[in-house]
Amino acid sequence: MNKSPRRGRRPGSPDTRAAILDVARRRFLAEGYHAVTLRSVAAEADVDLALISYFFGSKKGLFGAAMALKVNPTEVLAASLEGDLATLPQRALRNLLAAWDNPENGPALLAMLRNLVQDDGHAALFKEVAEKEMIDRLAARIGGAQARRRAAVFVAQMGGLIVARYLVRAEPVASMSVDEIVRAFGPSLHQALQGAPPPGRRH
Amino acid sequence: MNKSPRRGRRPGSPDTRAAILDVARRRFLAEGYHAVTLRSVAAEADVDLALISYFFGSKKGLFGAAMALKVNPTEVLAASLEGDLATLPQRALRNLLAAWDNPENGPALLAMLRNLVQDDGHAALFKEVAEKEMIDRLAARIGGAQARRRAAVFVAQMGGLIVARYLVRAEPVASMSVDEIVRAFGPSLHQALQGAPPPGRRH
Repeated sequence: MNKSPRRGRRPGSPDTRAAILDVARRRFLAEGYHAVTLRSVAAEADVDLALISYFFGSKKGLFGAAMALKVNPTEVLAASLEGDLATLPQRALRNLLAAWDNPENGPALLAMLRNLVQDDGHAALFKEVAEKEMIDRLAARIGGAQARRRAAVFVAQMGGLIVARYLVRAEPVASMSVDEIVRAFGPSLHQALQGAPPPGRRH
Repeated sequence: MNKSPRRGRRPGSPDTRAAILDVARRRFLAEGYHAVTLRSVAAEADVDLALISYFFGSKKGLFGAAMALKVNPTEVLAASLEGDLATLPQRALRNLLAAWDNPENGPALLAMLRNLVQDDGHAALFKEVAEKEMIDRLAARIGGAQARRRAAVFVAQMGGLIVARYLVRAEPVASMSVDEIVRAFGPSLHQALQGAPPPGRRH
């Protein structure tokens, strides 16, 4: 697959894949989706362009894989799925706040969010990610009737918190401590997992 | 105040004010905040620049007033505050969906949302609007302990629904009917208005 012998890393090794993702993630977040080329990522990661195509298929595939590193919001939720269902909202909130409040991750996550909103390509990409990696996975974890709807309400609420606290920075949400956020947002997230009340109850 | 006689409209009349807002709203939504000048709005509305300053003080004042027309999200919430508190979430959801699902308003609201996310000036403007016109007004309506926090959780949830349904268009939220949305999101919004459970309860 290589046109010439490469220095350092063996093509196809896990290290090579990780190195490509590391470069891609940093550049996507710093420069936005459109500005980054597969060629420039290949050059910086010191690998053949064909190897990137082999691993990730396309720029979109590379972007999705790169976003799945470290600060990926889907991992925040996935990490919360293990453990007691009754305390899942608390875990999800604490994981979310740990990722977004972290001065190393927060700005990159915010840049990613802005990209998603500005660009239809990003929005379509994120729609896929939100449905498959967040809503479907949470639905599988909670199970039962209307699991996808309940999961979607939960994910939408987490999104609303992110927008209120980190994008709009609306008070009092922006200044509340982690414990205060968990206390304020936890009950509604629990309610979301419970789903709608029985049809007889008027709400 | 006028430098020269104006055609058509009398300066200072309610019609003149409405005409200015109509032009401003359309141009802000089509061109974004920065591209629109008070001068160009005055020219298109056929009024003196000084009259716009007199009515609205500044470009920010004009923007806020222009956004308050018809499709203003703050009015969606304000219209829901009247009536029984127990059914406020249902009213708020139905009003929100009526505004955003409307093919005349929806695209303009989405354009406004995109502007808010892209631009720090817009974000700061919307922060003000969200705090004063949404959170504070809802807090005053519901009253009681931590009213602002409860109101903020409610508003954040409404924002999460908007982002999920209209911006990301994530399924199943994007395709659910109005009744299905009310049924799925209503209970969590009710919970948000109730606030955190007593300290003894572990959640």
